[in-house]
Amino acid sequence: MSDPRRDSKWWGWGDPAVAPELDSEALATLRERIGELTPSPLAAELESFELPEPASLPAALTEAVGEDRVFSSAEDRVRHATGCGYVDLTRLRGGGLEAAPDAVLLPADADAVRRVLQVCAAEGVAVVPYGGGTSVVGGVEPLRGSHERLVSLDLADLRAVEVDRRSLTACLGAGLRGPEAEAALAAQGVTLGHFPQSYEYATIGGFAATRSAGQASSGYGRFDAVVNSVRLVAPAGDLRTLDTPHTAAGPALRELVVGSEGVLGVIPDVTVRVRPLPAVRRYEAWIADSFEAGAEIVRTMAQGPGLPDVIRVSDEEETSVSLALSGPRGVTGKLFGGYLGLRGKRGGGLIVIGIEGDEESVARRRALASRALRAGGAAYLGRSAGQSWEHGRFQGPYLRDTLMDMGAMVETLETSHTWSKLNDLRRSVGGAISDAMAAQGTPGLVFCHLSHAYADGASLYFTFIARSRKGAEVEQWRAVKQAASEAIVAGGGTITHHHAVGRDHAPYMEAEVGRTGLDVLRAVKDELDPAGIMNPGKLLG
Amino acid sequence: MSDPRRDSKWWGWGDPAVAPELDSEALATLRERIGELTPSPLAAELESFELPEPASLPAALTEAVGEDRVFSSAEDRVRHATGCGYVDLTRLRGGGLEAAPDAVLLPADADAVRRVLQVCAAEGVAVVPYGGGTSVVGGVEPLRGSHERLVSLDLADLRAVEVDRRSLTACLGAGLRGPEAEAALAAQGVTLGHFPQSYEYATIGGFAATRSAGQASSGYGRFDAVVNSVRLVAPAGDLRTLDTPHTAAGPALRELVVGSEGVLGVIPDVTVRVRPLPAVRRYEAWIADSFEAGAEIVRTMAQGPGLPDVIRVSDEEETSVSLALSGPRGVTGKLFGGYLGLRGKRGGGLIVIGIEGDEESVARRRALASRALRAGGAAYLGRSAGQSWEHGRFQGPYLRDTLMDMGAMVETLETSHTWSKLNDLRRSVGGAISDAMAAQGTPGLVFCHLSHAYADGASLYFTFIARSRKGAEVEQWRAVKQAASEAIVAGGGTITHHHAVGRDHAPYMEAEVGRTGLDVLRAVKDELDPAGIMNPGKLLG
Repeated sequence: MSDPRRDSKWWGWGDPAVAPELDSEALATLRERIGELTPSPLAAELESFELPEPASLPAALTEAVGEDRVFSSAEDRVRHATGCGYVDLTRLRGGGLEAAPDAVLLPADADAVRRVLQVCAAEGVAVVPYGGGTSVVGGVEPLRGSHERLVSLDLADLRAVEVDRRSLTACLGAGLRGPEAEAALAAQGVTLGHFPQSYEYATIGGFAATRSAGQASSGYGRFDAVVNSVRLVAPAGDLRTLDTPHTAAGPALRELVVGSEGVLGVIPDVTVRVRPLPAVRRYEAWIADSFEAGAEIVRTMAQGPGLPDVIRVSDEEETSVSLALSGPRGVTGKLFGGYLGLRGKRGGGLIVIGIEGDEESVARRRALASRALRAGGAAYLGRSAGQSWEHGRFQGPYLRDTLMDMGAMVETLETSHTWSKLNDLRRSVGGAISDAMAAQGTPGLVFCHLSHAYADGASLYFTFIARSRKGAEVEQWRAVKQAASEAIVAGGGTITHHHAVGRDHAPYMEAEVGRTGLDVLRAVKDELDPAGIMNPGKLLG
Repeated sequence: MSDPRRDSKWWGWGDPAVAPELDSEALATLRERIGELTPSPLAAELESFELPEPASLPAALTEAVGEDRVFSSAEDRVRHATGCGYVDLTRLRGGGLEAAPDAVLLPADADAVRRVLQVCAAEGVAVVPYGGGTSVVGGVEPLRGSHERLVSLDLADLRAVEVDRRSLTACLGAGLRGPEAEAALAAQGVTLGHFPQSYEYATIGGFAATRSAGQASSGYGRFDAVVNSVRLVAPAGDLRTLDTPHTAAGPALRELVVGSEGVLGVIPDVTVRVRPLPAVRRYEAWIADSFEAGAEIVRTMAQGPGLPDVIRVSDEEETSVSLALSGPRGVTGKLFGGYLGLRGKRGGGLIVIGIEGDEESVARRRALASRALRAGGAAYLGRSAGQSWEHGRFQGPYLRDTLMDMGAMVETLETSHTWSKLNDLRRSVGGAISDAMAAQGTPGLVFCHLSHAYADGASLYFTFIARSRKGAEVEQWRAVKQAASEAIVAGGGTITHHHAVGRDHAPYMEAEVGRTGLDVLRAVKDELDPAGIMNPGKLLG
């Protein structure tokens, strides 16, 4: 690769050619629930986008990375100045940013990364490691800390692929996007099975740095659970862990690197466990009497045999409304409505399951899952609705652009808790979001689904939509986000199940890990990054 | 509890009433293979045991723990002066020790632990956290570091049991021995399923501090894999992690506490994932054509469905010899010989499998396992041999006492590697042990088995037996241990799969985690234990 990638919208999500529209029925439903929307088109083209002047960088940095690998056009700086959270997109759509990297560096390999970090540490230049730029928590925000200069270190050219077919492991370069990694693995008959909603643009390095979880992680395992070993290039030196399947040799340093969000160093590659490519992928939908009944079924499956690879349970609000808004032109919603009518059920908790593997194991696991679903009172809705979900599984962020164009605030956040405390947490966080939107004068919709199940608990994923407060979008968002975060902390949930910490959750890290925990993380950072150049302001505040 | 526990041999393993003997056939086999043994009885009774005079301790320490909770009799000091490794027992049997704790403290709760650490940090008293005292790597060795005084902190009275039946988690006190924890859990219908060979005397806190793996960990999960959340009482403050099933909130501090071996602080309790008590436990034996054929079967099972909870494959040497020595009066060996004769196989690789659960799931999983075993060319030996293994699963350390009485050196060590490198590692480590024993003038037996299987690799567990060099036992052991450790490092294996680091593996930690990794661990220690009082000389050297 010779230039940083530019194949996605600079102001929104993904392929510019993909622009889903809401059909009239969905529009009517939305207006009925959140009020009339005022369209909010883009404020500026890239050519007139307002950015601060870049600071000039040490010549040694150009030598470290290579002359043709330093980029400082406005487009490259804008594209590396934010992630893809609602607040990020709001600012981009507004036509200007108060901060951007002074330059984008595109190292060719881990040695170049090491040289860059040496120069930056010596010269006091802040470094923001950049993978897919899909963070929704401000993970690549160009915060300078105590430094006057900042570079974005785009890892797109770290593209190693080395498969050990016998051990079912693969060393994958940090810069590989999800589909690039899967294509390289598929050529050798294996899959990583990691499909977060950001899959199409997010990278392997980002998955590791943020403890990502994918839509099929109940079966394939969260990203941190499939990491065999890691490398970290830190200003103070390289850290690496052995590739043995288990060790009792002290604290697991692997688990310090995974989730380090760029504040300790750069992950150039990760060795992960892979699986044979599934021959069969079966997706289907069921409906339970309520979210809680659906969650109870999932608990049974997660604590016994038969947990599907993909398992999702929507709450009543998401079940009855959000499907009408999702997918190209609401096709899922219409099918779903038809099914509901057919079966005489209204509302309830929609369940999507996906099981992958060889024919025999899919049949065996499906029989176990079906038994648990029926025992819990769920009714089968068929394969179409499941396949529709599968088909549209990466569409959510596109739909957000559509809704933002229409003048809506659309945001998601997530947490997890043990089964004993899950329902209370869902009620308190959902209530806090709803109340906070109303307090902003913009009553809105709150959806929740359970999307990752474990023997001891599950995740909760909230989506909320309201009219955006024109000119006060960030203030409005902040009020709702804060209310939700405080409810999560009060309920004992984690501040993030899979979106990571970044800028947005850093204020809650003390609640998460305690004062001593923060002190330990800061001691590790001081050891690996004594000059404090790595991704300032993220994770540790 | 009012006194430290004294229900095991002070000079050896476990219940003094259990003393297995080798039958004449086993004795003959042993003599034939390693030469004539010179009996090596105990050198001294406890009454005449030589110990250094204890240093006097700060009065504040008595206040911190309570007056009736400080013990300094010779017996209590001896019982807390060593673990249960071959070298430890050799020294105990020799009638004297050069070092022992100045006193044993028995804190009533985590608050008392916290007070003790405060006093010790202020006064410069080294602290060795003590669970079951079953370390085979010198984990509780009373090394003082830069301090002149040292206490053993016996955690036996930390006995919390709190089960969340709905989330299938349990908070268990560090001082609970394996059977105590299981009995408390069984009363609520659940099990932890953690059965290392040390199970009968080792404690929950020790399992966590050492990243223990149990005989059924292929199915139930290694101890670190079942930890939901932890607490650590450190001199600098308390560290705790949330009990949510997953979080993306930064590096996993839980994984710094698990495996910390007492050098960072004291783990007062651990919250673990438990499972419903199995209704059925089916153990059986099979025989493969060779160790490598057996390992290949296990690889297939671990990378697909059907991996049993217990899975062990013995190499040809262990298969043909060690079973004759194991179990009360060699009953397993005799049965096994009968089976072999019956089926016309000699040597080969013995496979023991154990599957636990409800009747239906055991039947289903057994069918999958049987299919993989037959596909790999293994022959069924029946349930008796499997049940004999199960019956004798905690007998190994008793047999070691018998062999040491007879004048043998008996030691075990373990590693792991990916499937691609497992066979090479087995050959190189086995060869190094064999050569080193021969170089000591005591050619011996080396057995190896695979006892923990993962999708990406497996563990290797070596047992070696030779005549002990009377008066030079430690030197002899050290030479063999060093040769084995160097072969492990050269082969890229981990220095320990489940025995932990302690004193014996500390010299190999730089090979394991690299210089930067060691620096990070030391930075964490400096943060949590600035006075360096916690378990000096272990883990980090």
